[in-house]
Amino acid sequence: MSRPIAIIGGTGPAGTGLALRWARAGETIIIGSRDAARAQGAAETIRQRVGANAGVSGLENSAACAASDLLMLTVPFAGQAELLKQLKNAIRAGSILIDATVPLAASVGGRASRTLGVWQGSAAQQTAELVPKGVSVVAAFHNVSADVLSSDDDVDCDVIVCSDDPRATEVAMELAAKIPRVRAIDGGKLENARIVEQITALLIGLNIRHKGHGGVRITGLPPSAYHGGPAS
Amino acid sequence: MSRPIAIIGGTGPAGTGLALRWARAGETIIIGSRDAARAQGAAETIRQRVGANAGVSGLENSAACAASDLLMLTVPFAGQAELLKQLKNAIRAGSILIDATVPLAASVGGRASRTLGVWQGSAAQQTAELVPKGVSVVAAFHNVSADVLSSDDDVDCDVIVCSDDPRATEVAMELAAKIPRVRAIDGGKLENARIVEQITALLIGLNIRHKGHGGVRITGLPPSAYHGGPAS
Repeated sequence: MSRPIAIIGGTGPAGTGLALRWARAGETIIIGSRDAARAQGAAETIRQRVGANAGVSGLENSAACAASDLLMLTVPFAGQAELLKQLKNAIRAGSILIDATVPLAASVGGRASRTLGVWQGSAAQQTAELVPKGVSVVAAFHNVSADVLSSDDDVDCDVIVCSDDPRATEVAMELAAKIPRVRAIDGGKLENARIVEQITALLIGLNIRHKGHGGVRITGLPPSAYHGGPAS
Repeated sequence: MSRPIAIIGGTGPAGTGLALRWARAGETIIIGSRDAARAQGAAETIRQRVGANAGVSGLENSAACAASDLLMLTVPFAGQAELLKQLKNAIRAGSILIDATVPLAASVGGRASRTLGVWQGSAAQQTAELVPKGVSVVAAFHNVSADVLSSDDDVDCDVIVCSDDPRATEVAMELAAKIPRVRAIDGGKLENARIVEQITALLIGLNIRHKGHGGVRITGLPPSAYHGGPAS
Protein backbone atom coordinates (compact mmCIF):
# COMPACT_ATOMS: atom_id res chain seq x y z
CA MET A 1 0.00 0.00 0.00
CA SER A 2 1.75 3.14 -1.13
CA ARG A 3 -0.70 5.88 -0.23
CA PRO A 4 -0.16 7.70 3.03
CA ILE A 5 -2.41 7.13 6.02
CA ALA A 6 -3.73 10.34 7.56
CA ILE A 7 -4.56 9.84 11.23
CA ILE A 8 -7.14 12.52 12.01
CA GLY A 9 -7.14 13.60 15.65
CA GLY A 10 -4.02 11.52 15.81
CA THR A 11 -2.04 13.02 18.69
CA GLY A 12 -3.79 10.96 21.41
CA PRO A 13 -2.60 7.54 22.58
CA ALA A 14 -4.69 5.55 20.04
CA GLY A 15 -3.57 7.70 17.11
CA THR A 16 0.11 7.80 18.02
CA GLY A 17 0.06 4.09 18.86
CA LEU A 18 -1.30 3.21 15.41
CA ALA A 19 1.14 5.65 13.80
CA LEU A 20 4.02 3.97 15.62
CA ARG A 21 3.01 0.48 14.49
CA TRP A 22 2.33 1.47 10.89
CA ALA A 23 5.51 3.53 10.64
CA ARG A 24 7.44 0.48 11.83
CA ALA A 25 5.72 -1.51 9.06
CA GLY A 26 7.05 0.99 6.52
CA GLU A 27 3.85 2.95 5.93
CA THR A 28 3.82 6.69 5.33
CA ILE A 29 1.89 8.47 8.08
CA ILE A 30 0.43 11.95 8.36
CA ILE A 31 -0.63 12.80 11.88
CA GLY A 32 -3.49 15.28 11.92
CA SER A 33 -4.41 17.61 14.75
CA ARG A 34 -6.34 20.84 15.29
CA ASP A 35 -2.92 22.33 15.94
CA ALA A 36 -0.31 21.72 13.21
CA ALA A 37 2.57 22.29 15.65
CA ARG A 38 1.19 19.64 17.98
CA ALA A 39 0.86 17.21 15.06
CA GLN A 40 4.46 17.88 14.07
CA GLY A 41 5.59 17.31 17.66
CA ALA A 42 3.80 13.93 17.78
CA ALA A 43 5.33 13.00 14.42
CA GLU A 44 8.80 13.90 15.69
CA THR A 45 8.33 11.72 18.79
CA ILE A 46 7.41 8.76 16.58
CA ARG A 47 10.35 9.35 14.24
CA GLN A 48 12.63 9.26 17.27
CA ARG A 49 11.26 5.86 18.23
CA VAL A 50 11.09 4.31 14.78
CA GLY A 51 14.22 5.80 13.23
CA ALA A 52 15.21 8.67 10.98
CA ASN A 53 13.82 6.97 7.87
CA ALA A 54 10.29 6.74 9.27
CA GLY A 55 7.83 8.50 6.99
CA VAL A 56 5.86 10.38 9.63
CA SER A 57 4.82 14.01 9.33
CA GLY A 58 2.30 16.26 11.04
CA LEU A 59 -0.39 18.54 9.58
CA GLU A 60 -3.49 20.39 10.67
CA ASN A 61 -6.50 18.02 10.34
CA SER A 62 -8.02 19.51 7.18
CA ALA A 63 -4.63 19.64 5.47
CA ALA A 64 -4.13 16.00 6.46
CA CYS A 65 -7.49 15.11 4.85
CA ALA A 66 -6.48 16.97 1.69
CA ALA A 67 -3.19 15.07 1.57
CA SER A 68 -4.62 11.55 1.63
CA ASP A 69 -7.66 9.52 0.69
CA LEU A 70 -7.02 6.99 3.46
CA LEU A 71 -8.13 8.46 6.78
CA MET A 72 -8.01 6.96 10.25
CA LEU A 73 -10.20 8.74 12.82
CA THR A 74 -9.05 8.52 16.45
CA VAL A 75 -10.91 11.16 18.41
CA PRO A 76 -12.94 10.94 21.60
CA PHE A 77 -16.66 10.53 20.90
CA ALA A 78 -17.34 13.96 22.44
CA GLY A 79 -15.49 15.63 19.56
CA GLN A 80 -16.34 13.27 16.72
CA ALA A 81 -19.43 14.87 15.16
CA GLU A 82 -18.15 18.43 15.40
CA LEU A 83 -14.80 17.51 13.84
CA LEU A 84 -16.45 15.66 10.96
CA LYS A 85 -18.68 18.66 10.24
CA GLN A 86 -15.61 20.91 10.18
CA LEU A 87 -13.81 18.56 7.81
CA LYS A 88 -16.71 18.04 5.43
CA ASN A 89 -15.13 20.14 2.69
CA ALA A 90 -11.62 18.83 3.31
CA ILE A 91 -12.37 15.12 3.01
CA ARG A 92 -11.75 14.04 -0.58
CA ALA A 93 -14.39 12.23 -2.59
CA GLY A 94 -13.63 8.52 -2.78
CA SER A 95 -11.74 8.52 0.51
CA ILE A 96 -11.83 5.59 2.91
CA LEU A 97 -12.35 6.66 6.50
CA ILE A 98 -11.59 4.13 9.22
CA ASP A 99 -13.39 5.00 12.44
CA ALA A 100 -12.26 3.68 15.84
CA THR A 101 -14.56 5.89 17.90
CA VAL A 102 -16.32 4.35 20.89
CA PRO A 103 -19.31 6.21 22.39
CA LEU A 104 -18.12 5.89 25.99
CA ALA A 105 -20.31 7.43 28.66
CA ALA A 106 -17.12 9.17 29.80
CA SER A 107 -17.82 11.57 26.91
CA VAL A 108 -20.50 13.19 29.07
CA GLY A 109 -18.91 12.68 32.46
CA GLY A 110 -20.06 9.07 32.95
CA ARG A 111 -18.04 5.90 33.21
CA ALA A 112 -15.66 4.63 30.55
CA SER A 113 -17.05 1.14 31.19
CA ARG A 114 -20.49 2.23 29.97
CA THR A 115 -21.64 3.51 26.60
CA LEU A 116 -24.09 6.07 25.32
CA GLY A 117 -26.87 5.12 22.94
CA VAL A 118 -26.18 6.65 19.54
CA TRP A 119 -29.23 7.46 17.47
CA GLN A 120 -27.76 5.87 14.33
CA GLY A 121 -26.82 2.73 16.24
CA SER A 122 -23.10 3.29 16.62
CA ALA A 123 -20.46 5.99 16.49
CA ALA A 124 -19.37 4.61 13.11
CA GLN A 125 -22.88 4.91 11.69
CA GLN A 126 -23.01 8.49 12.93
CA THR A 127 -19.75 9.07 11.06
CA ALA A 128 -21.24 7.55 7.92
CA GLU A 129 -24.04 10.11 8.13
CA LEU A 130 -21.61 13.03 8.51
CA VAL A 131 -19.00 12.33 5.83
CA PRO A 132 -19.45 13.60 2.27
CA LYS A 133 -21.16 11.30 -0.24
CA GLY A 134 -18.86 8.77 -1.82
CA VAL A 135 -16.69 8.39 1.28
CA SER A 136 -16.59 4.82 2.56
CA VAL A 137 -16.67 4.40 6.32
CA VAL A 138 -15.10 1.38 7.98
CA ALA A 139 -15.27 0.63 11.71
CA ALA A 140 -12.13 -0.99 13.11
CA PHE A 141 -9.40 -0.88 15.77
CA HIS A 142 -11.80 -0.19 18.68
CA ASN A 143 -10.65 -3.07 20.82
CA VAL A 144 -6.88 -2.68 20.53
CA SER A 145 -5.44 -1.15 23.70
CA ALA A 146 -3.93 2.27 23.03
CA ASP A 147 -1.46 1.63 25.85
CA VAL A 148 -0.28 -1.59 24.23
CA LEU A 149 -0.11 0.01 20.76
CA SER A 150 2.05 2.77 22.19
CA SER A 151 4.38 0.29 23.88
CA ASP A 152 6.83 -2.17 22.39
CA ASP A 153 4.73 -5.15 23.58
CA ASP A 154 2.99 -7.60 21.30
CA VAL A 155 -0.57 -6.68 20.41
CA ASP A 156 -2.54 -9.76 21.45
CA CYS A 157 -5.84 -8.73 19.88
CA ASP A 158 -8.01 -9.30 16.83
CA VAL A 159 -9.41 -6.41 14.84
CA ILE A 160 -13.01 -6.87 13.75
CA VAL A 161 -13.68 -4.79 10.64
CA CYS A 162 -17.20 -3.65 9.70
CA SER A 163 -18.20 -1.77 6.56
CA ASP A 164 -20.81 -1.67 3.84
CA ASP A 165 -18.02 -1.30 1.23
CA PRO A 166 -16.07 -4.54 0.72
CA ARG A 167 -13.17 -2.62 -0.85
CA ALA A 168 -12.88 -0.45 2.26
CA THR A 169 -13.09 -3.53 4.49
CA GLU A 170 -10.18 -5.03 2.57
CA VAL A 171 -8.03 -1.92 2.98
CA ALA A 172 -8.69 -1.77 6.73
CA MET A 173 -7.97 -5.49 7.09
CA GLU A 174 -4.63 -5.08 5.30
CA LEU A 175 -3.71 -2.23 7.63
CA ALA A 176 -4.67 -4.25 10.71
CA ALA A 177 -2.62 -7.23 9.56
CA LYS A 178 0.45 -4.96 9.28
CA ILE A 179 0.58 -4.82 13.08
CA PRO A 180 2.51 -7.89 14.25
CA ARG A 181 0.30 -10.59 15.82
CA VAL A 182 -2.93 -8.72 15.04
CA ARG A 183 -5.45 -10.70 13.04
CA ALA A 184 -8.13 -8.94 11.03
CA ILE A 185 -11.60 -10.46 10.74
CA ASP A 186 -14.35 -9.31 8.37
CA GLY A 187 -17.19 -8.48 10.75
CA GLY A 188 -19.74 -7.77 8.04
CA LYS A 189 -21.84 -4.64 7.67
CA LEU A 190 -21.14 -1.29 9.30
CA GLU A 191 -24.19 -1.75 11.56
CA ASN A 192 -22.27 -4.47 13.41
CA ALA A 193 -19.92 -1.75 14.68
CA ARG A 194 -22.44 -1.17 17.44
CA ILE A 195 -21.38 -4.43 19.07
CA VAL A 196 -17.66 -4.05 18.37
CA GLU A 197 -17.73 -0.57 19.90
CA GLN A 198 -19.46 -1.91 23.04
CA ILE A 199 -16.74 -4.51 23.52
CA THR A 200 -14.28 -1.69 24.22
CA ALA A 201 -16.39 -0.54 27.18
CA LEU A 202 -16.42 -4.12 28.48
CA LEU A 203 -12.64 -4.31 28.12
CA ILE A 204 -12.21 -0.99 29.95
CA GLY A 205 -14.32 -2.38 32.80
CA LEU A 206 -12.19 -5.53 32.87
CA ASN A 207 -9.02 -3.41 32.84
CA ILE A 208 -10.21 -1.42 35.84
CA ARG A 209 -11.35 -4.53 37.71
CA HIS A 210 -8.37 -6.74 36.98
CA LYS A 211 -5.64 -4.15 36.27
CA GLY A 212 -4.74 -5.21 32.75
CA HIS A 213 -4.78 -4.12 29.13
CA GLY A 214 -7.53 -6.31 27.77
CA GLY A 215 -7.96 -7.32 24.18
CA VAL A 216 -10.16 -9.81 22.40
CA ARG A 217 -9.53 -12.86 20.24
CA ILE A 218 -12.24 -14.55 18.21
CA THR A 219 -11.88 -18.33 18.26
CA GLY A 220 -13.54 -21.11 16.31
CA LEU A 221 -13.59 -19.63 12.81
CA PRO A 222 -11.87 -21.36 9.89
CA PRO A 223 -8.34 -20.15 9.01
CA SER A 224 -9.67 -18.30 5.96
CA ALA A 225 -11.50 -15.91 8.31
CA TYR A 226 -8.30 -14.59 9.83
CA HIS A 227 -5.92 -12.22 8.04
CA GLY A 228 -2.48 -11.71 9.51
CA GLY A 229 -1.36 -13.41 12.61
CA PRO A 230 0.10 -15.78 13.58
CA ALA A 231 -3.00 -17.31 15.14
CA SER A 232 -2.95 -17.21 18.91
CA MET B 1 -19.87 -28.51 44.62
CA SER B 2 -22.34 -31.10 45.83
CA ARG B 3 -25.69 -29.49 45.13
CA PRO B 4 -27.44 -30.43 41.91
CA ILE B 5 -27.64 -28.02 39.00
CA ALA B 6 -31.15 -27.61 37.61
CA ILE B 7 -31.06 -26.56 33.96
CA ILE B 8 -34.38 -24.82 33.38
CA GLY B 9 -35.56 -25.03 29.79
CA GLY B 10 -32.70 -27.44 29.42
CA THR B 11 -33.68 -29.65 26.50
CA GLY B 12 -32.32 -27.32 23.79
CA PRO B 13 -28.74 -27.44 22.48
CA ALA B 14 -27.33 -24.96 25.04
CA GLY B 15 -28.95 -26.74 27.98
CA THR B 16 -28.05 -30.26 26.93
CA GLY B 17 -24.54 -29.13 25.98
CA LEU B 18 -23.93 -27.67 29.45
CA ALA B 19 -25.52 -30.76 31.04
CA LEU B 20 -23.15 -32.99 29.06
CA ARG B 21 -20.06 -31.06 30.11
CA TRP B 22 -21.04 -30.80 33.76
CA ALA B 23 -22.12 -34.43 33.96
CA ARG B 24 -18.69 -35.39 32.61
CA ALA B 25 -17.17 -33.25 35.39
CA GLY B 26 -19.09 -35.31 37.94
CA GLU B 27 -21.84 -32.83 38.72
CA THR B 28 -25.42 -33.89 39.44
CA ILE B 29 -27.78 -32.45 36.82
CA ILE B 30 -31.53 -32.04 36.71
CA ILE B 31 -32.81 -31.15 33.26
CA GLY B 32 -35.98 -29.13 33.40
CA SER B 33 -38.61 -28.82 30.68
CA ARG B 34 -42.26 -27.87 30.32
CA ASP B 35 -42.76 -31.55 29.60
CA ALA B 36 -41.29 -33.96 32.18
CA ALA B 37 -41.12 -36.81 29.66
CA ARG B 38 -39.06 -34.66 27.29
CA ALA B 39 -36.71 -33.74 30.15
CA GLN B 40 -36.29 -37.42 31.01
CA GLY B 41 -35.58 -38.22 27.37
CA ALA B 42 -32.86 -35.54 27.22
CA ALA B 43 -31.39 -36.86 30.49
CA GLU B 44 -31.31 -40.39 29.11
CA THR B 45 -29.50 -39.22 25.97
CA ILE B 46 -26.82 -37.56 28.12
CA ARG B 47 -26.46 -40.63 30.36
CA GLN B 48 -25.85 -42.71 27.25
CA ARG B 49 -23.03 -40.38 26.23
CA VAL B 50 -21.44 -39.88 29.65
CA GLY B 51 -21.92 -43.36 31.13
CA ALA B 52 -24.29 -45.21 33.41
CA ASN B 53 -22.96 -43.46 36.53
CA ALA B 54 -23.79 -39.98 35.24
CA GLY B 55 -26.09 -38.19 37.67
CA VAL B 56 -28.56 -36.76 35.18
CA SER B 57 -32.32 -36.80 35.63
CA GLY B 58 -35.26 -34.97 34.09
CA LEU B 59 -38.14 -33.09 35.72
CA GLU B 60 -40.84 -30.61 34.81
CA ASN B 61 -39.39 -27.06 35.19
CA SER B 62 -41.13 -26.13 38.45
CA ALA B 63 -40.22 -29.47 40.03
CA ALA B 64 -36.63 -28.87 38.90
CA CYS B 65 -36.66 -25.45 40.62
CA ALA B 66 -38.03 -27.03 43.80
CA ALA B 67 -35.28 -29.66 43.73
CA SER B 68 -32.31 -27.28 43.61
CA ASP B 69 -31.18 -23.82 44.62
CA LEU B 70 -28.71 -23.64 41.73
CA LEU B 71 -30.56 -22.89 38.51
CA MET B 72 -29.23 -22.47 34.99
CA LEU B 73 -31.65 -20.79 32.56
CA THR B 74 -31.26 -21.72 28.88
CA VAL B 75 -34.41 -20.64 27.08
CA PRO B 76 -34.90 -18.53 23.97
CA PHE B 77 -35.52 -14.87 24.80
CA ALA B 78 -39.06 -15.15 23.40
CA GLY B 79 -40.03 -17.48 26.24
CA GLN B 80 -37.89 -16.09 29.06
CA ALA B 81 -40.24 -13.63 30.80
CA GLU B 82 -43.29 -15.86 30.60
CA LEU B 83 -41.42 -18.86 32.00
CA LEU B 84 -39.99 -16.84 34.88
CA LYS B 85 -43.47 -15.59 35.79
CA GLN B 86 -44.75 -19.16 35.79
CA LEU B 87 -41.89 -20.30 38.02
CA LYS B 88 -42.11 -17.43 40.50
CA ASN B 89 -43.57 -19.63 43.25
CA ALA B 90 -41.35 -22.59 42.44
CA ILE B 91 -37.98 -20.84 42.65
CA ARG B 92 -36.63 -21.23 46.18
CA ALA B 93 -35.54 -18.23 48.25
CA GLY B 94 -31.77 -17.94 48.29
CA SER B 95 -31.38 -19.63 44.91
CA ILE B 96 -28.70 -18.65 42.45
CA LEU B 97 -30.01 -18.34 38.89
CA ILE B 98 -27.48 -18.26 36.07
CA ASP B 99 -28.96 -16.68 32.95
CA ALA B 100 -27.51 -17.29 29.48
CA THR B 101 -30.36 -15.66 27.57
CA VAL B 102 -29.52 -13.44 24.60
CA PRO B 103 -32.19 -11.06 23.29
CA LEU B 104 -31.70 -12.00 19.65
CA ALA B 105 -33.90 -10.27 17.11
CA ALA B 106 -34.69 -13.78 15.90
CA SER B 107 -37.10 -13.87 18.88
CA VAL B 108 -39.47 -11.69 16.89
CA GLY B 109 -38.68 -12.98 13.43
CA GLY B 110 -35.58 -10.84 12.88
CA ARG B 111 -31.97 -11.87 12.43
CA ALA B 112 -29.96 -13.85 14.95
CA SER B 113 -27.04 -11.52 14.26
CA ARG B 114 -29.03 -8.58 15.66
CA THR B 115 -30.43 -7.94 19.11
CA LEU B 116 -33.52 -6.35 20.56
CA GLY B 117 -33.31 -3.49 23.04
CA VAL B 118 -34.45 -4.69 26.44
CA TRP B 119 -36.00 -2.05 28.67
CA GLN B 120 -33.94 -3.13 31.70
CA GLY B 121 -30.73 -3.07 29.65
CA SER B 122 -30.22 -6.80 29.12
CA ALA B 123 -32.07 -10.09 29.23
CA ALA B 124 -30.31 -10.84 32.51
CA GLN B 125 -31.52 -7.62 34.08
CA GLN B 126 -35.05 -8.46 32.95
CA THR B 127 -34.60 -11.80 34.71
CA ALA B 128 -33.44 -10.04 37.87
CA GLU B 129 -36.69 -8.09 37.86
CA LEU B 130 -38.82 -11.22 37.45
CA VAL B 131 -37.31 -13.61 40.01
CA PRO B 132 -38.50 -13.64 43.64
CA LYS B 133 -36.68 -11.44 46.14
CA GLY B 134 -33.54 -12.98 47.55
CA VAL B 135 -32.70 -14.84 44.34
CA SER B 136 -29.29 -13.88 42.95
CA VAL B 137 -29.06 -13.57 39.17
CA VAL B 138 -25.78 -14.16 37.35
CA ALA B 139 -25.27 -13.67 33.62
CA ALA B 140 -22.88 -16.19 32.07
CA PHE B 141 -22.32 -18.74 29.29
CA HIS B 142 -23.79 -16.55 26.50
CA ASN B 143 -20.79 -16.78 24.23
CA VAL B 144 -20.08 -20.50 24.38
CA SER B 145 -21.26 -22.21 21.20
CA ALA B 146 -24.08 -24.66 21.92
CA ASP B 147 -22.88 -26.76 18.99
CA VAL B 148 -19.38 -27.02 20.45
CA LEU B 149 -20.73 -27.75 23.97
CA SER B 150 -22.83 -30.57 22.53
CA SER B 151 -19.85 -32.04 20.68
CA ASP B 152 -16.73 -33.72 22.00
CA ASP B 153 -14.54 -30.84 20.82
CA ASP B 154 -12.57 -28.55 23.09
CA VAL B 155 -14.45 -25.43 24.12
CA ASP B 156 -12.10 -22.62 23.07
CA CYS B 157 -13.95 -19.79 24.81
CA ASP B 158 -13.89 -17.65 27.93
CA VAL B 159 -17.00 -17.20 30.06
CA ILE B 160 -17.53 -13.64 31.28
CA VAL B 161 -19.59 -13.69 34.47
CA CYS B 162 -21.64 -10.68 35.58
CA SER B 163 -23.59 -10.35 38.81
CA ASP B 164 -24.32 -7.95 41.64
CA ASP B 165 -23.78 -10.80 44.16
CA PRO B 166 -20.10 -11.78 44.48
CA ARG B 167 -21.07 -15.14 45.98
CA ALA B 168 -23.17 -15.94 42.93
CA THR B 169 -20.37 -14.80 40.63
CA GLU B 170 -18.03 -17.20 42.38
CA VAL B 171 -20.42 -20.15 41.98
CA ALA B 172 -20.90 -19.45 38.26
CA MET B 173 -17.15 -19.07 37.76
CA GLU B 174 -16.53 -22.43 39.44
CA LEU B 175 -19.10 -24.05 37.16
CA ALA B 176 -17.55 -22.46 34.05
CA ALA B 177 -14.08 -23.62 35.02
CA LYS B 178 -15.36 -27.22 35.26
CA ILE B 179 -15.61 -27.26 31.46
CA PRO B 180 -12.19 -28.20 30.11
CA ARG B 181 -10.27 -25.26 28.57
CA VAL B 182 -12.96 -22.74 29.52
CA ARG B 183 -11.69 -19.82 31.57
CA ALA B 184 -14.07 -17.82 33.74
CA ILE B 185 -13.57 -14.06 34.13
CA ASP B 186 -15.35 -11.83 36.62
CA GLY B 187 -17.06 -9.28 34.40
CA GLY B 188 -18.35 -7.10 37.22
CA LYS B 189 -21.92 -6.00 37.77
CA LEU B 190 -25.00 -7.57 36.21
CA GLU B 191 -25.51 -4.45 34.07
CA ASN B 192 -22.43 -5.47 32.05
CA ALA B 193 -24.43 -8.45 30.77
CA ARG B 194 -25.81 -6.12 28.13
CA ILE B 195 -22.45 -6.16 26.37
CA VAL B 196 -21.73 -9.84 26.93
CA GLU B 197 -25.15 -10.73 25.49
CA GLN B 198 -24.47 -8.59 22.40
CA ILE B 199 -21.23 -10.45 21.73
CA THR B 200 -23.27 -13.57 21.02
CA ALA B 201 -25.08 -11.80 18.19
CA LEU B 202 -21.71 -10.71 16.77
CA LEU B 203 -20.45 -14.30 16.98
CA ILE B 204 -23.58 -15.59 15.24
CA GLY B 205 -22.97 -13.09 12.44
CA LEU B 206 -19.33 -14.24 12.18
CA ASN B 207 -20.47 -17.88 12.16
CA ILE B 208 -22.85 -17.22 9.27
CA ARG B 209 -20.26 -15.18 7.35
CA HIS B 210 -17.27 -17.44 7.89
CA LYS B 211 -18.94 -20.81 8.56
CA GLY B 212 -17.52 -21.47 12.01
CA HIS B 213 -18.43 -21.86 15.66
CA GLY B 214 -17.05 -18.64 17.05
CA GLY B 215 -16.08 -18.04 20.63
CA VAL B 216 -14.24 -15.28 22.43
CA ARG B 217 -11.04 -15.08 24.47
CA ILE B 218 -10.12 -12.06 26.55
CA THR B 219 -6.40 -11.32 26.37
CA GLY B 220 -4.13 -9.00 28.31
CA LEU B 221 -5.41 -9.48 31.85
CA PRO B 222 -3.15 -10.72 34.65
CA PRO B 223 -3.27 -14.48 35.42
CA SER B 224 -5.32 -13.81 38.57
CA ALA B 225 -8.23 -12.66 36.38
CA TYR B 226 -8.65 -16.07 34.77
CA HIS B 227 -10.17 -19.09 36.53
CA GLY B 228 -9.73 -22.48 34.95
CA GLY B 229 -7.88 -22.97 31.75
CA PRO B 230 -5.28 -23.65 30.61
CA ALA B 231 -4.76 -20.23 29.10
CA SER B 232 -4.99 -20.21 25.32
